[in-house]
Amino acid sequence: MRANADMPKIVDHEKQREKLAKATWRVIRQGGIGQASFRNIAEEAGASVGSIRHYFPTQSELLAFSMKLISDRINQRIRNIKWSDSPFEGMKQLLREILPMDEEQRIETEVWFAFTAKALVDPTLQPFSNEIYDELRSVFTFIIEHLIKLDLAVPDLDVEMEVERMYALIDGLAVHAILRPDRLKPDMIESVVNHHLKSLCR
Amino acid sequence: MRANADMPKIVDHEKQREKLAKATWRVIRQGGIGQASFRNIAEEAGASVGSIRHYFPTQSELLAFSMKLISDRINQRIRNIKWSDSPFEGMKQLLREILPMDEEQRIETEVWFAFTAKALVDPTLQPFSNEIYDELRSVFTFIIEHLIKLDLAVPDLDVEMEVERMYALIDGLAVHAILRPDRLKPDMIESVVNHHLKSLCR
Repeated sequence: MRANADMPKIVDHEKQREKLAKATWRVIRQGGIGQASFRNIAEEAGASVGSIRHYFPTQSELLAFSMKLISDRINQRIRNIKWSDSPFEGMKQLLREILPMDEEQRIETEVWFAFTAKALVDPTLQPFSNEIYDELRSVFTFIIEHLIKLDLAVPDLDVEMEVERMYALIDGLAVHAILRPDRLKPDMIESVVNHHLKSLCR
Repeated sequence: MRANADMPKIVDHEKQREKLAKATWRVIRQGGIGQASFRNIAEEAGASVGSIRHYFPTQSELLAFSMKLISDRINQRIRNIKWSDSPFEGMKQLLREILPMDEEQRIETEVWFAFTAKALVDPTLQPFSNEIYDELRSVFTFIIEHLIKLDLAVPDLDVEMEVERMYALIDGLAVHAILRPDRLKPDMIESVVNHHLKSLCR
């Protein structure tokens, strides 16, 4: 018996899944979600279709994981925000983390957009899309409630309505920023975000 | 010679193009823009692929026309708004015409969303997508400038910034309304729109 024959082959499964997810992002970015077939993703990742199926039995599962990885990254960045200095600055930073302000965030937004458009017509993706929608919505609930708790907000803010308004505003800015980077620049996005936050404060 | 042999066959070409565009909407709604092939659209319209090619030599031209028909319908509805009663009411109505407040407008928004997602990765669609983007943006420029002209606006409104803010807000609401009709209802959309308009006024 050879020494290593019984030792398990060490494969970092989480790393493998991430590698496939990132290949999925690149394929979506280049050709749209219609191109995100196992074959194209396998080619992009330098993997075999069989090895993808090992991790993701269906295309929906791969797409959902790829999308979940994006919302995890956003949540991670949000958790890293330092709130100690100024809560107002913290909130501005939080909103910037969600918006496509740099190349990496642009990719996230483009993949989110393509994924969301597909989820509209693919019922198997809808639960994942809904989960991400609700998760992101809770960020805006947090912002509005935090403004009130810190006594920064104007009196009698309608919480539900302001949550919907801010969520729609931020998603609209995100969509416009990827559709027309020539028209809606990061500077303007920042102005809109600052102005909107200020308009909610005393 | 038979009486009618030389008489041109009367075909209303514009009607034919519209019929094909509407079949395109239905196909996109049912299966996403990835399903909008000549074959599927021909089947949906009860036409032959050859007759579609007669009107639209490429798929991009058919998609662009289908999308243009939507923005024409929105513009038509906007032109029908009566401004005589109250300019504020007129503006609220204008915003309602853009948003998916009923089944017909929901279809428009879903097709717009699918078309826009495809335009992101299909350079042949981008000019049409950009044209629609600019056309819609000009509606918001009109609203903000009109508020100022009528002396309804709060002093020192930053026009460019408020245009981007309102445009993003309305597109964000439209996207959310089709993604989560269970969460974002027409009543809430109306509240957000009213509140936002009021916040811009004295």
